[in-house]
Amino acid sequence: MSEQPAPAPVPVPAPAASPLSPALAAALKRDSAGLVAAVVQQFDTNEVLMLGWMDDEALHRTMTSGRVTFYSRSRQEYWRKGDTSGHVQWVKSVAMDCDGDALLIRVDQVGAACHTGTRTCFDGRALDVQAGAAL
Amino acid sequence: MSEQPAPAPVPVPAPAASPLSPALAAALKRDSAGLVAAVVQQFDTNEVLMLGWMDDEALHRTMTSGRVTFYSRSRQEYWRKGDTSGHVQWVKSVAMDCDGDALLIRVDQVGAACHTGTRTCFDGRALDVQAGAAL
Repeated sequence: MSEQPAPAPVPVPAPAASPLSPALAAALKRDSAGLVAAVVQQFDTNEVLMLGWMDDEALHRTMTSGRVTFYSRSRQEYWRKGDTSGHVQWVKSVAMDCDGDALLIRVDQVGAACHTGTRTCFDGRALDVQAGAAL
Repeated sequence: MSEQPAPAPVPVPAPAASPLSPALAAALKRDSAGLVAAVVQQFDTNEVLMLGWMDDEALHRTMTSGRVTFYSRSRQEYWRKGDTSGHVQWVKSVAMDCDGDALLIRVDQVGAACHTGTRTCFDGRALDVQAGAAL
């Protein structure tokens, strides 16, 4: 248990050349790397498939091309899901959350969402927990 | 469209006094603030309710207490969902994703998940997109 609070998040303003509408660019709350979290959900079953990261350009491409594009934090490059694997994500809808730091991307996922071959990135990766319940 | 790549993510090691098991603490990939993204999903409908942030301590509390605890990036404090609003999240299961930077917390949500009063933090917040479809 740390007694030191984490550093305050540094909201990153929209890049000067954001391809998004001014209203949307102003509403996004980016982390210190300029990214927001993108939850990807299968549109008909509601399965949570994976979580990725988007900057303004990745969100713009996702909103306008019919395919999901992420920004890879580890490789520092854009990554259109399925270009290598064939496991395309067809965009059905995109919503931004109440405070602008998360996106919900509803898709039709072709094949496995996870690079390990499982349908979702969470399959078979449950942790031991004490479940809770109302009395 | 920025021509400058975002700064490389700085993986943060487990805090010296992490309350998690050594294996779990080693598997988590924290951002520069020591946090991972936590997607919260209603266990029976699969609705995505919200996205929050957890450090090792918040995850430990969530795994052991039956209630979801987040770390608030804006307030820099722990926040047990429902303590103020009554909108408790009872933990059903927790899974970590394939690369350790996201958690899927399945819960039974009491009332509204969103502080604005909507059931989820994404309700009514759809963006205009060009949907995609396989030919």
